[in-house]
Amino acid sequence: MKTYSVTIAREYGSGGRLIGKQLASELGIGFYDKELIVLAARESGLHEDFIETMDQKKASSFFYNLYMPYNVVPIPEQIFLAQSKAIKDLAERESCVIIGRCGDYVLGDVKNCVRIFIHAPMEYRVELVKKEYQEGGNSPVEFIRKQDKYRASYYDFFTQHKWGRAQNYNICLDSSIGIAKTVGILKTYIEEYISKAE
Amino acid sequence: MKTYSVTIAREYGSGGRLIGKQLASELGIGFYDKELIVLAARESGLHEDFIETMDQKKASSFFYNLYMPYNVVPIPEQIFLAQSKAIKDLAERESCVIIGRCGDYVLGDVKNCVRIFIHAPMEYRVELVKKEYQEGGNSPVEFIRKQDKYRASYYDFFTQHKWGRAQNYNICLDSSIGIAKTVGILKTYIEEYISKAE
Repeated sequence: MKTYSVTIAREYGSGGRLIGKQLASELGIGFYDKELIVLAARESGLHEDFIETMDQKKASSFFYNLYMPYNVVPIPEQIFLAQSKAIKDLAERESCVIIGRCGDYVLGDVKNCVRIFIHAPMEYRVELVKKEYQEGGNSPVEFIRKQDKYRASYYDFFTQHKWGRAQNYNICLDSSIGIAKTVGILKTYIEEYISKAE
Repeated sequence: MKTYSVTIAREYGSGGRLIGKQLASELGIGFYDKELIVLAARESGLHEDFIETMDQKKASSFFYNLYMPYNVVPIPEQIFLAQSKAIKDLAERESCVIIGRCGDYVLGDVKNCVRIFIHAPMEYRVELVKKEYQEGGNSPVEFIRKQDKYRASYYDFFTQHKWGRAQNYNICLDSSIGIAKTVGILKTYIEEYISKAE
C-alpha cells in the first residue's frame, strides 16, 4: 500500500485525539499532534518552546499577534506556514495520523488522504473533559465552547473555509458511541477509501 | 429493539437515495421518499399531485409562493408542516429510513434517530447523475449546483440551521467509496448508535 495520511479535526472534548492515537496504533502508522511543533520548529528556526507557548495561548493573543503593526510576517502566520510545510513533508515521507492544525486544508490536493471531523453532544464532552483532562472547572460548558470558538476561528482565518462543514471532510461523526467503536468505523472507512484511491 | 429512525440528507447526485433504499432493505425497515407526499396529502387535505408538483417546482416558485401577499399560511409552509407531522407520526409508528424533507431537524428531539448527510466530489456526482438519472444535459455541473442550492435554501429557510453542518448530523460521509461500501459503514454506525441509545 502506498503512503497515505489521515487528518483529524475535532470539537473540544469529543475524544478526537484519543481516537486518532488508537487509530494510528491499529493502522500501524505514525501519530502526530504536539510532535508537529518540533518539526515546525526545525522548519522555521523558531524555538519549539516558543511555538508551544503560542499554541497554548489561544484566541486573544493569537489575533493580537496576527495584527501586529510591523512590516514582517506575523508570528502566528510564520508558525502556520512552518507547520504546513512540516505536515506536507511528513505526508510525503510516511503514512500518518495528523491531529488539528488545518491538516485537511493543508493536504487538500493530496489524493491518498482521508479527512476526518469528530464531534459529540455537549453532555458527552463535559463528561470526557472532566474525566480525561480534569479541565473546565465549574463552567465546563463555557470552557468547551470557548475552545471550539478558538478552533473554528483559527481554521476559518487560515483556510477561508468553514470549520465543521461536512463537505470539507471525507467522514464526520458523532463519537458518543464510544472511542473503540468510533475507531472501528473510521478504520473501515479509511481502508475502503485508500484502496479506492490507489 | 425499539422503533428507530434514520434520516438522510444528501447532495444531489451523491447516491443518497440509492444508499437509503439499500440501507432500509438491509436493516429490514421501511423506506420513505416520495411516499411522504402521500402521507402529507392525507394530513393536509391538499391533493398529492399538487404536493408533488410543488415538490418538483424547486427554488423560484418555492420562494414566490412563500411570499404570496395573502393572509393565509403560504402553500410551501402548509406542505412543510404536513410533511413534518407525517414524519413524526411515522417515526413513532415504525422503524424507517426517511429521505430529505429536513428529517434530521423534524426529528431533532427524538433519541432513537440517526441523522445522516451524504456528499461526494463533483466528478463522482456528474458520473452518477449521467448514468443513473440521465439528467444534467450539457451542463451537469451547473445543474447539480442548482439542485444543491435549492436543497440548502429550503433546509436553511425552514430550520434556521445550516445544511451540511457536520454537527447537525450523527454521521456525514463522502460516498465516492461506492454505494455498497457506504451502506456497510452506515449500517454498522446505526447499529452501534441505536444499541447505545436504548
